[in-house]
Amino acid sequence: MAITVVGSVAFDSIETPAGRRERCLGGAATYFSLSASFFTDVRVIAVVGEDFGRRQEAVFQARNIDTRGIEHTAGKSFFWEGSYLENLNEAKTHNTELNVFAAFEPKIPEAYRDSEFLFLANIDPVLQRRVREQMPDVKLVAGDTMNYWINDHRPALLEVLKGLDVLLINDTEARMLAGNNNLVQAARAVLALGPHTLVVKHGEYGATAFFSGKSFTPKTEGAQHHPFRAPALPLEEVVDPTGAGDSFAGGFFGYLASQGELTPAAFRRAMFYGSVMGSFACERFGTERLQELTRKEIDDRFIQFRELTHLD
Amino acid sequence: MAITVVGSVAFDSIETPAGRRERCLGGAATYFSLSASFFTDVRVIAVVGEDFGRRQEAVFQARNIDTRGIEHTAGKSFFWEGSYLENLNEAKTHNTELNVFAAFEPKIPEAYRDSEFLFLANIDPVLQRRVREQMPDVKLVAGDTMNYWINDHRPALLEVLKGLDVLLINDTEARMLAGNNNLVQAARAVLALGPHTLVVKHGEYGATAFFSGKSFTPKTEGAQHHPFRAPALPLEEVVDPTGAGDSFAGGFFGYLASQGELTPAAFRRAMFYGSVMGSFACERFGTERLQELTRKEIDDRFIQFRELTHLD
Repeated sequence: MAITVVGSVAFDSIETPAGRRERCLGGAATYFSLSASFFTDVRVIAVVGEDFGRRQEAVFQARNIDTRGIEHTAGKSFFWEGSYLENLNEAKTHNTELNVFAAFEPKIPEAYRDSEFLFLANIDPVLQRRVREQMPDVKLVAGDTMNYWINDHRPALLEVLKGLDVLLINDTEARMLAGNNNLVQAARAVLALGPHTLVVKHGEYGATAFFSGKSFTPKTEGAQHHPFRAPALPLEEVVDPTGAGDSFAGGFFGYLASQGELTPAAFRRAMFYGSVMGSFACERFGTERLQELTRKEIDDRFIQFRELTHLD
Repeated sequence: MAITVVGSVAFDSIETPAGRRERCLGGAATYFSLSASFFTDVRVIAVVGEDFGRRQEAVFQARNIDTRGIEHTAGKSFFWEGSYLENLNEAKTHNTELNVFAAFEPKIPEAYRDSEFLFLANIDPVLQRRVREQMPDVKLVAGDTMNYWINDHRPALLEVLKGLDVLLINDTEARMLAGNNNLVQAARAVLALGPHTLVVKHGEYGATAFFSGKSFTPKTEGAQHHPFRAPALPLEEVVDPTGAGDSFAGGFFGYLASQGELTPAAFRRAMFYGSVMGSFACERFGTERLQELTRKEIDDRFIQFRELTHLD
């Protein structure tokens, strides 16, 4: 089943202990799409400027990602500059230029309307909600957000949460959103805001999914909804963690969209595929690793994750 | 098979967001022994002062722990005062009084000499080495250490590492010991110093075991030695994290000592039992939870850990 994703398609300048890259293709919707495209059809809604040309377009085309929803306008694309020199787990932002994103009005192409899965990447919750309202009949809606929206745009964010099935955020964001430092208590508080599933990403320690007990599908009503923790792969070298969280989301949601039934077991496997895709994203700068990845490598790494965590 | 453990038996004054306790029974050897006693026979080597009386002795007796190696001398027992008010993952030390520990000369009772497992809890590496040399024929030796010994007593510590099979330390300590911020690279560097197994504890995110590829027993030579990650249980309430790491070590090593063969599968299950015991230790102040724990609760939680991590 096809996924429509709305979010940023951008240029990033990144510095890590492994080196520096200027204006490489980035943005949450880019990482998400590339990652999810290994599992299912992906359709992107975003806005770009005149600096987004054939070379960038080709990255999406190579993965058969539908880009008819990427609007081209006068001006420059969203730009982010950041570094991870002191701490690979946390980006230090040096510069953010919204550019064409400042006036973004998401429009959903007619061809996208039969998408059964919708992903609202980290953008202004007002825009997330506008997209959500235009696609009322999707089967599963997931979304991401960040500290800025949690702190300074809480009312708009709370409206979005009411319409979400799955929220994917990191530890700090979960604790901030709930106003509670205990992860289990924070998870319960967040689940009371709307989503039936909360995926908390722990960076190099993996991610934990908490379930509200509401059913994924009527069939699994009453099934056990205990939390599930997927590890991250202990990596020999983290070249660039940019986009790891969005790649996690793409693997997680892409796998779910590829499944006939949304059972608890499918959600657990989706957590593993999320971790798998997040681990690949870190191995090279920007989207480099995702661009040349094969499905076989993904499946091999899934087995590695199983060996890393399973008793027998 | 019996474990001999050498380390501190102490009094702790602890403050956490859940409250405060004055001079409760503590010390690495205490937590380790209580935890390991659910799996095998445990024998303690330590020194205490006149403040250690029948009430403290009874805590060990209730778990059938051999205390003949606890030397009673004039003076006060080791005392530690700390708090976790800002961060439950890291203790802030307010006061440490070595007291009788300052002149500690570990003596191994004759009755302990047939112990096949030896645990060197976090004490001066000079003392760890002295105990190790007096028990040259043990089957498996594990140990712990801390930032102070890593930074200020490195030569003595490196001598100890040469005689260790398993080292259990936390993330920060592993990175500090190796002088490398990448966990996989740090693990490889630490394994080159002696131990064939390195267990890195991640606090609320669990622990990862790295193996050098040297065999555990001749039988398993050539078996796969991929890393293994055990989660920590997402806990609704962490009352007091004091002793969680030592309780992890007790569960890990106690389980291994209870097994006939030290196979890779036994090491993986030991990681789970370590996490299980660490999770219990946090649920009440000091040793309270370990004192009233049952084997059935341990086995039930082991199943919970499996459900938390296993795909099916």
